[in-house]
Amino acid sequence: MLSFIGLGLYDERSITLQGRDALRDADRAFAEFYTSRLVGTTVDALEETHGIDIEVRDRAGVERDPEPILDAASGGHAAFLTAGDTMISTTHVDLRTRADERGIETRVIHGTTAQTAASSLTGLQNYRFGKATTLPFEETRGGVPDSVLATIGENRERDLHTLVYLDIDAESERYMTGDTAAGLLADHLDAVGVVVGQAGSDDPTVRADRLGALAGESFGPPLHLLVIPGDLHPLERESLRTFGGAPADALE
Amino acid sequence: MLSFIGLGLYDERSITLQGRDALRDADRAFAEFYTSRLVGTTVDALEETHGIDIEVRDRAGVERDPEPILDAASGGHAAFLTAGDTMISTTHVDLRTRADERGIETRVIHGTTAQTAASSLTGLQNYRFGKATTLPFEETRGGVPDSVLATIGENRERDLHTLVYLDIDAESERYMTGDTAAGLLADHLDAVGVVVGQAGSDDPTVRADRLGALAGESFGPPLHLLVIPGDLHPLERESLRTFGGAPADALE
Repeated sequence: MLSFIGLGLYDERSITLQGRDALRDADRAFAEFYTSRLVGTTVDALEETHGIDIEVRDRAGVERDPEPILDAASGGHAAFLTAGDTMISTTHVDLRTRADERGIETRVIHGTTAQTAASSLTGLQNYRFGKATTLPFEETRGGVPDSVLATIGENRERDLHTLVYLDIDAESERYMTGDTAAGLLADHLDAVGVVVGQAGSDDPTVRADRLGALAGESFGPPLHLLVIPGDLHPLERESLRTFGGAPADALE
Repeated sequence: MLSFIGLGLYDERSITLQGRDALRDADRAFAEFYTSRLVGTTVDALEETHGIDIEVRDRAGVERDPEPILDAASGGHAAFLTAGDTMISTTHVDLRTRADERGIETRVIHGTTAQTAASSLTGLQNYRFGKATTLPFEETRGGVPDSVLATIGENRERDLHTLVYLDIDAESERYMTGDTAAGLLADHLDAVGVVVGQAGSDDPTVRADRLGALAGESFGPPLHLLVIPGDLHPLERESLRTFGGAPADALE
């Protein structure tokens, strides 16, 4: 049996009871933290909380050498852990397909995600979000890729919000911040932005303002995400004022 | 203090450890199950698992008479529970705003959602989903509303998947099923559909086929949801064959 378990958003308490029970039941646990990370905890704390050794695999160890994971799942119950929900990366889907080909039963246990936090922490309604996009580090693509601006533009034309994931280089522990992202986008876009930081923690940050203003602020430790809203409904506007500290004139 | 806690997708084990701890710490717990329900459990089982009485409020009891909840949060720690994530309904946002106006500290604790399950159970990549929509019971709007078809159509033009939430009448425990939804849409659309049932349970259902074929199947107990994919990437196609039992010729 191979259980894919999403650890949720932030720390060792972000997992569901179902996920915790599955992890307790596992004979061996593997994890990958190159797609995303739990910034509020450590592997040691996860191991202690769940009473199991966690073998962290790098990208090559999952994509090119999945055999040890499949062998463990073939002879017993293996858990494969990721931050957020599971199956967010094609790698996970590929691993699940390979397991199935070997006749290994698989199971998916969901975790909380940035996608839902972008909606519930800001008060922006979840059914008003269009396609999401990812803003890469500036040097990776030489500025803001056209595809990012196109996604935001198409969503705004349809009056939809855009969740902008911010680039992560988990291995060097480098995370794009909300102010950097707002600054990059402000060169192309005169719009409101909403930065969410530390989603899933007991004290997350939410700040709404014009992109140019957000570029000059700081939002605490990672992870950050950025939402570019479409036209705001009255209750959404009120929520951004109340919980995002938006200046009254910024949201017009 | 007023803690908004998402109970997650399915039963009393779908809550996060963070949510469980907050609920244990609460002096009083309120819940609404008219927006969605945890079909895998009962209020009694929730109360027993979490060691707290849960006062279930109907729509009027939240929207028109929130004072008892706000009073409890003003004098102590109150929890407000919903299925899935919290803040999915404008009612929740409104309650949070009212609490803030009364000087009550609020907190948001996330739960797992149908949105992420639609992606991780099917293998359809989450960044390829466009705006979601809801298909109402046929008698409510006299057939399939134009807005539903427009959302699916616009997403398909942009090569995006559409999550179609299926109508719920929680008070009469009536839930639209995947076969009904597929049948309604098949009259307007020649497309592949993916039905997901019992998301968040230990044994969820995933079935992919042409909408016309899905209309003649059944998918077990509620809740169901339906995804109308855009063009499939190779790994997505493989996942729908492997985990959704899609006939090879259905996905062309």
